[in-house]
Amino acid sequence: MIRHVAVFRFVPEFTADEREHWMGLLRALPAQIPSVRSMSVGPDVLGGAASHDLAIVADFDDLDGLDLYSRHPAHAEVLRISAGVKISLATVDFEIPES
Amino acid sequence: MIRHVAVFRFVPEFTADEREHWMGLLRALPAQIPSVRSMSVGPDVLGGAASHDLAIVADFDDLDGLDLYSRHPAHAEVLRISAGVKISLATVDFEIPES
Repeated sequence: MIRHVAVFRFVPEFTADEREHWMGLLRALPAQIPSVRSMSVGPDVLGGAASHDLAIVADFDDLDGLDLYSRHPAHAEVLRISAGVKISLATVDFEIPES
Repeated sequence: MIRHVAVFRFVPEFTADEREHWMGLLRALPAQIPSVRSMSVGPDVLGGAASHDLAIVADFDDLDGLDLYSRHPAHAEVLRISAGVKISLATVDFEIPES
């Protein structure tokens, strides 16, 4: 399994309501992109020294499934919104052995 | 449930063998810290523009469980190693509704 992790920082002008809307679009992706095995999305609740604003964790059978997600038109719309408001994005895509 | 996400970049002097050893220490934490519900750890395999080196995703029942993990001596040893070799650390701790 491939686990895709994405951690964002946003400009303060990206309001709480807009973030909720954006998370809603993300949470709708698994129903539109069959290669998404599972997805979790949420805003940081800890506010520590290293804390960023929001994380996405999405699981796929393999890199081909991740690629289908990355190139899907519904995902492109999500990217279009975050591109205008993100300060930073850090991603890691790593393998998890099937148990 | 609380999901703890941590994304690292390391100095190049932190060798592949040392990273494997460090990931082994991390993967041993759930057996030592009962509040860890599950944990996945791995190095990035994509190497994209936003890719960082390594991610940890750990799940807890609640913030108290995360706090037990953060303050546990076995976790402190892991932190001691990464403190000397990390370029950056980005974390997000977010809630996942129980299904």
